[in-house]
Amino acid sequence: MISKMMVDLGRKRSCIRELFEYGKQQAELVGIENVYDYSIGNPSVPAPVNIATTMRKLLEGDSVQLHGYTSANGCKPAREAVAEDLTRRSKSLIRPENIFFTCGAAPAICASIRALAYEGSEFILIAPYFAEYPVYVNYNGGKAVIVEADIKEFQINFDALEKVINEKTQAVIINMPNNPSGIVYSDETVHNLATILENKSQKYGHPIYIISDEPYRELVYDGVDTPFIPSIYPQTIICYSFSKSLSMPGERIGYVCVPDVAQDSDDLYYAIAGAARTLGHVCAPSLMQWIIAENSRLRPDLSIYDQNRQTLFKELSRIGYRCIKPMGAFYMLVEAPGGDAQHFSDLAKEENLLVVPANDFGCPGFFRISTCVSPGMIERSIPAFEKAYQKALN
Amino acid sequence: MISKMMVDLGRKRSCIRELFEYGKQQAELVGIENVYDYSIGNPSVPAPVNIATTMRKLLEGDSVQLHGYTSANGCKPAREAVAEDLTRRSKSLIRPENIFFTCGAAPAICASIRALAYEGSEFILIAPYFAEYPVYVNYNGGKAVIVEADIKEFQINFDALEKVINEKTQAVIINMPNNPSGIVYSDETVHNLATILENKSQKYGHPIYIISDEPYRELVYDGVDTPFIPSIYPQTIICYSFSKSLSMPGERIGYVCVPDVAQDSDDLYYAIAGAARTLGHVCAPSLMQWIIAENSRLRPDLSIYDQNRQTLFKELSRIGYRCIKPMGAFYMLVEAPGGDAQHFSDLAKEENLLVVPANDFGCPGFFRISTCVSPGMIERSIPAFEKAYQKALN
Repeated sequence: MISKMMVDLGRKRSCIRELFEYGKQQAELVGIENVYDYSIGNPSVPAPVNIATTMRKLLEGDSVQLHGYTSANGCKPAREAVAEDLTRRSKSLIRPENIFFTCGAAPAICASIRALAYEGSEFILIAPYFAEYPVYVNYNGGKAVIVEADIKEFQINFDALEKVINEKTQAVIINMPNNPSGIVYSDETVHNLATILENKSQKYGHPIYIISDEPYRELVYDGVDTPFIPSIYPQTIICYSFSKSLSMPGERIGYVCVPDVAQDSDDLYYAIAGAARTLGHVCAPSLMQWIIAENSRLRPDLSIYDQNRQTLFKELSRIGYRCIKPMGAFYMLVEAPGGDAQHFSDLAKEENLLVVPANDFGCPGFFRISTCVSPGMIERSIPAFEKAYQKALN
Repeated sequence: MISKMMVDLGRKRSCIRELFEYGKQQAELVGIENVYDYSIGNPSVPAPVNIATTMRKLLEGDSVQLHGYTSANGCKPAREAVAEDLTRRSKSLIRPENIFFTCGAAPAICASIRALAYEGSEFILIAPYFAEYPVYVNYNGGKAVIVEADIKEFQINFDALEKVINEKTQAVIINMPNNPSGIVYSDETVHNLATILENKSQKYGHPIYIISDEPYRELVYDGVDTPFIPSIYPQTIICYSFSKSLSMPGERIGYVCVPDVAQDSDDLYYAIAGAARTLGHVCAPSLMQWIIAENSRLRPDLSIYDQNRQTLFKELSRIGYRCIKPMGAFYMLVEAPGGDAQHFSDLAKEENLLVVPANDFGCPGFFRISTCVSPGMIERSIPAFEKAYQKALN
């Protein structure tokens, strides 16, 4: 017998992938220059040149070490490099023993959930949230509980949050800079969140964790800084990926950081290691680990993303769209003219303009555009945005 | 609350890792040349030189494509290359649509189990089996059921197998060439297995699958050939890894093949895709996929492994050990003199000879040695094998 639940999960293409595939087909019909695909979040700038340089150098060395198994938690030089980088930036001591390398952020999040899940346990998602979180929670032993979006500021709807926390709450998953909104929570928001979780943890007699999913951590603009959450709330598990910061999302390299300040941090770390084992984790890709060992301080060139963000915000606002100005990541959330994001996405499609309704991100009434596209495409797409806007309001 | 079950899984180092770490410490004390470490199965021959050549070439190309997301099931050229290679070797048509790339065989097996698991479902392991199988089964929705080893021929104990199959049996996991025994099942064994599973499938009204874990498929000696299981038993899911065949176990690149001949093969494929999603799979490492696309026909240089196998079999037999002559992989299973493998392993340790008791492989009374070591170490280790043998019998 084949699990019907799994068949459905496998068959149901995400709305993003659906649009992305449509775009590729449409490009063959009308020409790639006439399709304005804002669907997918694939970094559009190349990996920093140091990545290839390091790789060429490593290829001169010992193949058996380079491509061999590392320890399950990662090779020591890579863990040391990440620990050193995090310590320098956060001014909190992070040791190599706090780092567990994974095949990207997705299994890092799954392992963190499994490490905490028990029958009936709940994990809170703050809308808007990354569309795969409900899958990760609901199929790794937990139950996803949604907190509706604060659609004014895109911070956290604390009234709604307080109402859903109960004795079964194990963690709150946050993501900032946020996909899809591009928002970075303010200091006030993070401190409020910490206070609430501290109180609730005390009330229910067990820590309620923050699982902080931070693949966009370095993609911030206008001097915005993303806080180091464990310094504010110790019961934090950081999940990170080098996908976006080093423009290599396909390479599946990331890590979990369990800081010493977390309660029973040793047990927590081992629970994540155990959980990873049950997911089929053996080690993170070894070549990439050795590359990270030498390049943990590399940062992305954000100039194109920043320019795109500025252009799109300015142009779309000029047309009449209500946009959330992104502070980070490479997405922008826009209110759907007419109010129905799916309908608007369909209208836009008629103009070969591909935008993702944010329903799956827990934010109906909005659509998401990925700003990691070519500046030329943005310029060519503006008339399509104008037409779709007019259509939606008529 | 941290899951105690996961903490225990994370803290409990495998016996293999325990010995391996001990060996590294001991080497610092007595010199690396005086430690005879047969514990771990890390390929000791470098990756074929074409791997580095292809990588250098790819680094000249488009970084965004090379390191970008592929489709969840893998980039088309890699799936095409694998399908073409499998078709040529098996003389059964395998299409790119039958292939789903994964981060190695371990998550491929976990996804296959999840695709079939339901409350109470059972998965049969044939001893000796790879020590992580019980973890993969028991933590992905199934229950592992063990069939005791045929310790004469190391084929399958069919009487025992028939007894444990029932209406809840979803699959039998096989591994050949086998880790730890190095045995390849005979044609007769595979056909018997197929007949039993066909009958039982009919009896219980649902297919009982074979999950065929084949990372050692190309590591065979003396002209032995590993059969293409779906040609004999259609309800087969193949899990493969390039870890051993291309000497890159750290790179986490493998695949699932769901052949068209399997019942509802489309559903089965999608169920595995869905299951992979719940494990945090996004895609397999992209650079490695592009490398496989150009090197799917590469085969390992087996000469050293073969030579080691011959030497060890000859020398250990001469001393008096009862060894199972391996037909494939790079392991050898040896009967523990005195009968207690843990005790023998402890005695051997006193001679700085590190061998793994096969208890965790479901084969008590035997120990495993990895033959992927340097020929020089083998030569130096023979006196230690002699001493340990004498000690164990006195």
